Amino acid sequence: MNRLQKSIDSLVESYGEYGLVNHSGANLPSRRSIEDILRGLEELIFPGFRDNEIPDHDNLGLITAEKVNHAARGLIRETEKSIAFSDRNGGFKCGRGGCHAAAELIVGNFFSDLPGMRRLIVLDMKAAFSGDPAAKNTEEVIVSYPGFEAITVHRMAHFFWKAQVPLIPRMMSELVHGRTGIDIHPGAEIGESFFIDHGTGVVIGETTVIGKNVKLYQGVTLGALSVNKEEGNRKRHPTIEDDVTIYANATILGGETVVGRGSTIGGSVWLTESVSPESLVYLKKGEILIKKKG
Amino acid sequence: MNRLQKSIDSLVESYGEYGLVNHSGANLPSRRSIEDILRGLEELIFPGFRDNEIPDHDNLGLITAEKVNHAARGLIRETEKSIAFSDRNGGFKCGRGGCHAAAELIVGNFFSDLPGMRRLIVLDMKAAFSGDPAAKNTEEVIVSYPGFEAITVHRMAHFFWKAQVPLIPRMMSELVHGRTGIDIHPGAEIGESFFIDHGTGVVIGETTVIGKNVKLYQGVTLGALSVNKEEGNRKRHPTIEDDVTIYANATILGGETVVGRGSTIGGSVWLTESVSPESLVYLKKGEILIKKKG
Amino acid sequence: MNRLQKSIDSLVESYGEYGLVNHSGANLPSRRSIEDILRGLEELIFPGFRDNEIPDHDNLGLITAEKVNHAARGLIRETEKSIAFSDRNGGFKCGRGGCHAAAELIVGNFFSDLPGMRRLIVLDMKAAFSGDPAAKNTEEVIVSYPGFEAITVHRMAHFFWKAQVPLIPRMMSELVHGRTGIDIHPGAEIGESFFIDHGTGVVIGETTVIGKNVKLYQGVTLGALSVNKEEGNRKRHPTIEDDVTIYANATILGGETVVGRGSTIGGSVWLTESVSPESLVYLKKGEILIKKKG
Repeated sequence: MNRLQKSIDSLVESYGEYGLVNHSGANLPSRRSIEDILRGLEELIFPGFRDNEIPDHDNLGLITAEKVNHAARGLIRETEKSIAFSDRNGGFKCGRGGCHAAAELIVGNFFSDLPGMRRLIVLDMKAAFSGDPAAKNTEEVIVSYPGFEAITVHRMAHFFWKAQVPLIPRMMSELVHGRTGIDIHPGAEIGESFFIDHGTGVVIGETTVIGKNVKLYQGVTLGALSVNKEEGNRKRHPTIEDDVTIYANATILGGETVVGRGSTIGGSVWLTESVSPESLVYLKKGEILIKKKG
Repeated sequence: MNRLQKSIDSLVESYGEYGLVNHSGANLPSRRSIEDILRGLEELIFPGFRDNEIPDHDNLGLITAEKVNHAARGLIRETEKSIAFSDRNGGFKCGRGGCHAAAELIVGNFFSDLPGMRRLIVLDMKAAFSGDPAAKNTEEVIVSYPGFEAITVHRMAHFFWKAQVPLIPRMMSELVHGRTGIDIHPGAEIGESFFIDHGTGVVIGETTVIGKNVKLYQGVTLGALSVNKEEGNRKRHPTIEDDVTIYANATILGGETVVGRGSTIGGSVWLTESVSPESLVYLKKGEILIKKKG
Repeated sequence: MNRLQKSIDSLVESYGEYGLVNHSGANLPSRRSIEDILRGLEELIFPGFRDNEIPDHDNLGLITAEKVNHAARGLIRETEKSIAFSDRNGGFKCGRGGCHAAAELIVGNFFSDLPGMRRLIVLDMKAAFSGDPAAKNTEEVIVSYPGFEAITVHRMAHFFWKAQVPLIPRMMSELVHGRTGIDIHPGAEIGESFFIDHGTGVVIGETTVIGKNVKLYQGVTLGALSVNKEEGNRKRHPTIEDDVTIYANATILGGETVVGRGSTIGGSVWLTESVSPESLVYLKKGEILIKKKG
């Protein structure tokens, strides 16, 4: 097809003109790799729940060693790409040892922290079970709760965020955002025993700080008041203290907004100011009209 | 890597400490198996629309027999795991015939009901076509409407819910929740000719009861007022009678809330009380301010 | 199993009774094919970002030619099925040359337009980067932003919509709706430098018209006031002029509603009337009550 050849030439020309071609292989982490790595890490958190080969008591150590080594190799490779990309652009500094050694160090630290993350994730699972009347047992939470999947991945993505690895943490959180509809920026700091029920439409911004035993429902936004690019380094998102519950579709905005501990925020509330501890915030009545048809 | 070995030991230790390892293979249904089974069942509902091998008139019987047998084997295996898990924990009683026989019985009943479910699903398809001005033909509904996919899966998940099979119904509904953003608890009772348009963010709780010819839009919540774990067995979610339309992002809460037949609930309404038949419920005017910039 | 055989017979009978079997292979495009084709097209837009084999400067032309030819074959095959389906039902007219030739022409035109679409998509990427304080670089936008993925696919789906190809455009948009929670009807006309942040729950209806430099947040609905099937051919969705920002969960309805250029629509606003250029529209204050618990 002569005509297709013209389109091909024109596309290749456009690659030169507008750039944005990921050249030369070593450049950037691939979405598929991050997806595979995440699956491996989820299998390490709850052995036998996500994978096809089921461990028994005898081979658990061996299977774990294999999975850790496999995931570590993948993570080192993708982390090296990410920090090398950032090093080239004046961000992350790989230092004299080079980017491969820096990646090995970061991934080593990640696996040192993984048992501690697992402890937190077990607490999240318990919070989901006790926070949802429809939950019949903790196994159900592990195999089917999207809010639990989102916080599991967030706790791992947040590690890479704190280690200043570019791209990978956001790729992890967007993969689970795609699967669950829950959008937690990897920068958000979230305390233990966290539970999101239903979850579709939840947005938790980059500089959000959340305490312990916080529960959110579907459609809750913890967002920014201003979206000026220049303010990208300020705290733009709210602080939610311990023991707060925020019902469906509530919107809480602003970096100086603090929801005091023990407060309850009602459904569909729109809040841009701080409230003191133990507050009950709800929409005022009488906002709807009911009339007879015809 | 000596350091990784330490992390592996520490992870294995944490498996002992916090448990939640799915040991010994036969324990719990796997997400991937349920996903494969669901795909097979969707192919049985509308032959040729989801699968790669397309049936013609002559081989339709043969292909159907093969697919039913394949899906039945998978369903019996996963159902047996689920009810055995529940039997061990004092829930489902497999009885003297054992869990395999009980699983065979349940799955046999499922396939007996499947033609009837297909009749209901055809009605849902027609409701989608007639309820959406943008729908050009029913084929478009089958190949692309997420609300139609959600109700198709719900009708099957609800069968297993009624049969008191644990885990599998919720795994089915969460798989389609992940794909569509529509979260229908498998316990919800939904009448014929049901349509959800767009659908992202819809939540329909466990004890919701919905009549015939009901239409919902994106972001509608049919939820609970109270989320005390102790009330887990009460009716906590609303009743929606026949011929009701609920527009985008409306929230209707409470087990005693009844939306009377023929009513229309406007967008973004927040309703926690019953309304009589033929009601029109909408947000009162004048709630927004418009001013000139600068 | 004798009982299963009865269910099989009854299912096959129901196929005859309720129809909706995709017979004889050539009938309808398959979801899996469209998914594969979309992946190939996304790889053509940003080489090396979605694919596993990474192009270098020398083989970029060759790889592009291979990918264009592969995608073109798939698109011609699926387009031919779609327009033949429509031709049989009195819609699309394949004409005397037949449906295969008509499909070749449409797909040829698509690839002629692809470099121009890529130019638009690069502008969308820049709009995402400059519109989100959390975006660290444009690469992050390409590898992880769901709003960017949605507009990328929309620009391609919209081409097939304008060419009056049935089914395929909607299948494309529903595939990306499933992945991102962003539901853009392929008929919507969207100007350059478009950005949706977070995105879950966004709905943009069939006859929406959007200008340049428009920014939307999660949960925004650009919808219809009336959903009568008879009005399916009228403009039912709003017009959004250049340089408009619409914050989270705002709902704008109606085919005659025009949001004037440079306007800002606040979060959760519900708007069914036109506003003049440079308007600032927001929810009035004092709608929530705060009290102390206990």
